[in-house]
Amino acid sequence: MAKAEKSSIFAPRGTTEQVEEGRAFAPKFDADGLIACVVTDASSGEVLMLAHMNAEALAKTITTGEAWFYSRSREKLWKKGETSGHVQRVLEMRVDCDQDALWIRVEQIGAAACHTGRKSCFYRAVPLQESDVGRLTLEFRNADKLFDPAKVYADKREKKRD
Amino acid sequence: MAKAEKSSIFAPRGTTEQVEEGRAFAPKFDADGLIACVVTDASSGEVLMLAHMNAEALAKTITTGEAWFYSRSREKLWKKGETSGHVQRVLEMRVDCDQDALWIRVEQIGAAACHTGRKSCFYRAVPLQESDVGRLTLEFRNADKLFDPAKVYADKREKKRD
Repeated sequence: MAKAEKSSIFAPRGTTEQVEEGRAFAPKFDADGLIACVVTDASSGEVLMLAHMNAEALAKTITTGEAWFYSRSREKLWKKGETSGHVQRVLEMRVDCDQDALWIRVEQIGAAACHTGRKSCFYRAVPLQESDVGRLTLEFRNADKLFDPAKVYADKREKKRD
Repeated sequence: MAKAEKSSIFAPRGTTEQVEEGRAFAPKFDADGLIACVVTDASSGEVLMLAHMNAEALAKTITTGEAWFYSRSREKLWKKGETSGHVQRVLEMRVDCDQDALWIRVEQIGAAACHTGRKSCFYRAVPLQESDVGRLTLEFRNADKLFDPAKVYADKREKKRD
């Protein structure tokens, strides 16, 4: 962590007061060098996905106005939509009180953010006020597939699931 | 991780197909036993905060319909609003495609989710399309303080910042 902070291109972390009430952008990356980013649809407000950025992805997102992330499963920098064309134009970026989480409001090109073909990755609901959480059955909601993943990601194994 | 999954009260992780297209709730906790949870205001759609749940917090949230988290800084189970009274009634819970992130839509009691007194923890914007990310200046947005943290958390050092 100390290493990650030392080499950061962003402002250094300050006191709690500075981090929470200041104007310096001092994002806190975790031990893996990542920060969580909530992505919402700017027009509907719907949460589309939750992903992670490393310092490079964050810098690219800021400078280009399009969403870049770091794929933990593929262990590589990843431009959202680089394969599918479903890029995200960032209309606004927010940082939270202790600057360890980001929120971007985007225009989702292609209408679908999820690699399964749905608009949002959050297409299933968890029933509430159930006494036996081991027997929960998820309910599909807004789960229509807006594209066919098999076609969009065909022959693109290297870059699939973006 | 294997240990966390083995002792989980939730369904076991299955194949990618089962996790993404199935109805079994098989949340994936990270190496620290945590899963990220996006919290939005059910009426406005605004992102209020991003927090983490361990298996116990998730089970309590499901069974009680109120938001419970795990505080990484205080290393303890934490009922949102236990000190401030600003509890969150969960109207809906969603899980994402690979079941490693949650989204809850809540009714925020007391109108403010952030321990700094703001409605949302995301009260500052990061300027976009700037070429020098090291010199960014954050802009305060919707940053009115709706309560006085000094009063709400006075003499409650143990449980502060909820």
